[in-house]
Amino acid sequence: MSHDVIESLVIPNTTKIVLLVLDGLGDLPNAQQGGKTPLEAARTPHMDALTPRSALARLLPVLPGVTPGSGPGHLGLFGYDPVTTVVGRGVLEALGAGMELKPGDVAARANFCTIDDSGIVTDRRAGRIATDVCEKLVAKLQKDATRFEDVEVILKPGKGHRFVAVLRGPGLGGDASDADPHKEGKKIPSAHALVPGAANEKTARIIDAFVKRVGEVLKDDHPANGALARGFSARPHLPHYKDRYQLRAAAIAAYPMYRGVAELAGMHLFIPTGEGAADAIATAKAQWDSHDFFFLHVKGTDMAGEDGDFAAKVAVIESVDAALPALLALKPDVICITGDHSTPVPMKGHSWHPVPALIQSANCFMDGFDRFHEKNCRGGSFSGLASKDLMGVLLANAGRLDKYGA
Amino acid sequence: MSHDVIESLVIPNTTKIVLLVLDGLGDLPNAQQGGKTPLEAARTPHMDALTPRSALARLLPVLPGVTPGSGPGHLGLFGYDPVTTVVGRGVLEALGAGMELKPGDVAARANFCTIDDSGIVTDRRAGRIATDVCEKLVAKLQKDATRFEDVEVILKPGKGHRFVAVLRGPGLGGDASDADPHKEGKKIPSAHALVPGAANEKTARIIDAFVKRVGEVLKDDHPANGALARGFSARPHLPHYKDRYQLRAAAIAAYPMYRGVAELAGMHLFIPTGEGAADAIATAKAQWDSHDFFFLHVKGTDMAGEDGDFAAKVAVIESVDAALPALLALKPDVICITGDHSTPVPMKGHSWHPVPALIQSANCFMDGFDRFHEKNCRGGSFSGLASKDLMGVLLANAGRLDKYGA
Repeated sequence: MSHDVIESLVIPNTTKIVLLVLDGLGDLPNAQQGGKTPLEAARTPHMDALTPRSALARLLPVLPGVTPGSGPGHLGLFGYDPVTTVVGRGVLEALGAGMELKPGDVAARANFCTIDDSGIVTDRRAGRIATDVCEKLVAKLQKDATRFEDVEVILKPGKGHRFVAVLRGPGLGGDASDADPHKEGKKIPSAHALVPGAANEKTARIIDAFVKRVGEVLKDDHPANGALARGFSARPHLPHYKDRYQLRAAAIAAYPMYRGVAELAGMHLFIPTGEGAADAIATAKAQWDSHDFFFLHVKGTDMAGEDGDFAAKVAVIESVDAALPALLALKPDVICITGDHSTPVPMKGHSWHPVPALIQSANCFMDGFDRFHEKNCRGGSFSGLASKDLMGVLLANAGRLDKYGA
Repeated sequence: MSHDVIESLVIPNTTKIVLLVLDGLGDLPNAQQGGKTPLEAARTPHMDALTPRSALARLLPVLPGVTPGSGPGHLGLFGYDPVTTVVGRGVLEALGAGMELKPGDVAARANFCTIDDSGIVTDRRAGRIATDVCEKLVAKLQKDATRFEDVEVILKPGKGHRFVAVLRGPGLGGDASDADPHKEGKKIPSAHALVPGAANEKTARIIDAFVKRVGEVLKDDHPANGALARGFSARPHLPHYKDRYQLRAAAIAAYPMYRGVAELAGMHLFIPTGEGAADAIATAKAQWDSHDFFFLHVKGTDMAGEDGDFAAKVAVIESVDAALPALLALKPDVICITGDHSTPVPMKGHSWHPVPALIQSANCFMDGFDRFHEKNCRGGSFSGLASKDLMGVLLANAGRLDKYGA
């Protein structure tokens, strides 16, 4: 509902918006670091120069207490309600593996398993085979298990025993049950339509044919002599940036997962030459004239958080700050620096904590804080803003929203 | 939903609530004024005395990033959700023109235009005729184009080529298409029902008859020899203050638009003798015993913001402050000073920025701030409160809400 209001108010403009996402940016005061967060401890002269004339925000990615995965975290930033916009696990897995998903495709997480002579699953992870073994087995399947009826099955190996399967063909449904007993000592169940209908029944039929064929092709590849598949989901049809916001959007991200979510939003995808902020900014510069909205993704902050490495997270933040002048030189009308979620160093993983954000434009409220970090953000103009409402604020700052009502 | 809860808890009381609205009060730190907002720069000794024992708020009028018109801005303050409570453009225009709207009335914005011999609109604004010409033409129509079937058409001239038309009669619908080609070089299209049904079809039929009759009556009045009408809308049926809140509400506003919105809420309307806060307060004093809720509207802050006149906005705020002792002498149990939206001086127009509010009562949380302005409000008790939820807070402070549940 609230987004219908925003969309109904969108007016064209030539202004440019930059959304610079430091993945997992938010953190906690760290007792070993004098109670500072990485953002607080980092030396960030360029952000510091920007901060006094910026509005600070503390974004709530999903709901209070909810720790978002990368999918929901980015969907929120992109203006989709991550509670009602469901992107299936299989789709996220396929996007994360860098697989293209076309409309109508159905994606699934899959993995190799061990099956005994009577069809009982004795090891759901096939003895945790090595990644290179997985790659060879997937190559074998790609020769002999890729066509069922008029459906193509596209496979991509993952880490260890894992791989991704994408079903491509006419009339497939996304709501089919798992071909996975979810415990050892049972046979692989036949898939069935979770919602009645020919499309879901066709998907179930193809899955069963695929699982059966894998058993035949790999019959001599013990312990990896079978496959399980789960989390079937169809590529969702999200309204695109062009239609919702009249924005020509560019997504610049080194990792496929983030390009994948951006692709769902209809952004044009660009792979920078490296993982650093400077690389992403160089790509933004090259695309500056042809786009109005730039999503730049930096992964390093999240990885450092996951590793529990305070110094590494500080270093990534400082490298982003060092690259910032090149971005500001492009003279964006609106710049927002934020994260998709928090990945606090002490927790070594994603968390539910709100995410700091900085919003700068000619007409933002100048909150007047000296530095951009979690503590100051609590008292900023947009303390408690839902991530899904950020786009409305950025569009407003860009002069791209008309007045509501007379 | 939340308002159903509030309404279910309302209990009678003899307490009095004052809602003092300085239109467009919210502003931005102004670089030319040492980074101060007008509210911050103004000398306001009486507000300053009130502030330490007040709760401060920063109200969100509609949604993050959404710039409200005056209608949605006031609907929010009055406790209606401005997203779901849609008041049509024609209705607001009629209310703004000071026209009475009865239940069943359908209002429209209209204007004179130029039509050539073949019925093509050659100038949608009839050469921007002067207001006195418009008044004469409307008077001419009032003699010969006011009755179609059993429907009366009530007209009121506006500025330049503009006028307002209200259709009054049985069985009219508010969802009819515009009798306006929206560009030159085309004929005036026939109106049609936007939602099927006899009521909307009747409205469309009356509109077409009116437009045809205007062409006949004004055939010798080139360049104003035709009329266009658009934004048809029916007077909405909002639940009234008496029924929702058990409040006898008085609206005191010099400008008809604001009295109009208050009338939709079922308030009793009073026109003060002047535009200043002192005039409104004098009217409140006269009505003090007969009412429990007083909406006082001061327009000057918005006008100064629209003009980009920092000094003028400061002066209006200071004049309100000077009048405040007369209001406080009435000993309201709850006083709230706020705005319907922000009209920042640097932007010379309405904006999306949250609006500062001060709430004072015997039981408010004393936030302890020294002054009432946008910056302190960010850290106040109600930072981020939706305008539509303000009424619940005021009723609570007035001891007019029962406990929820056991």
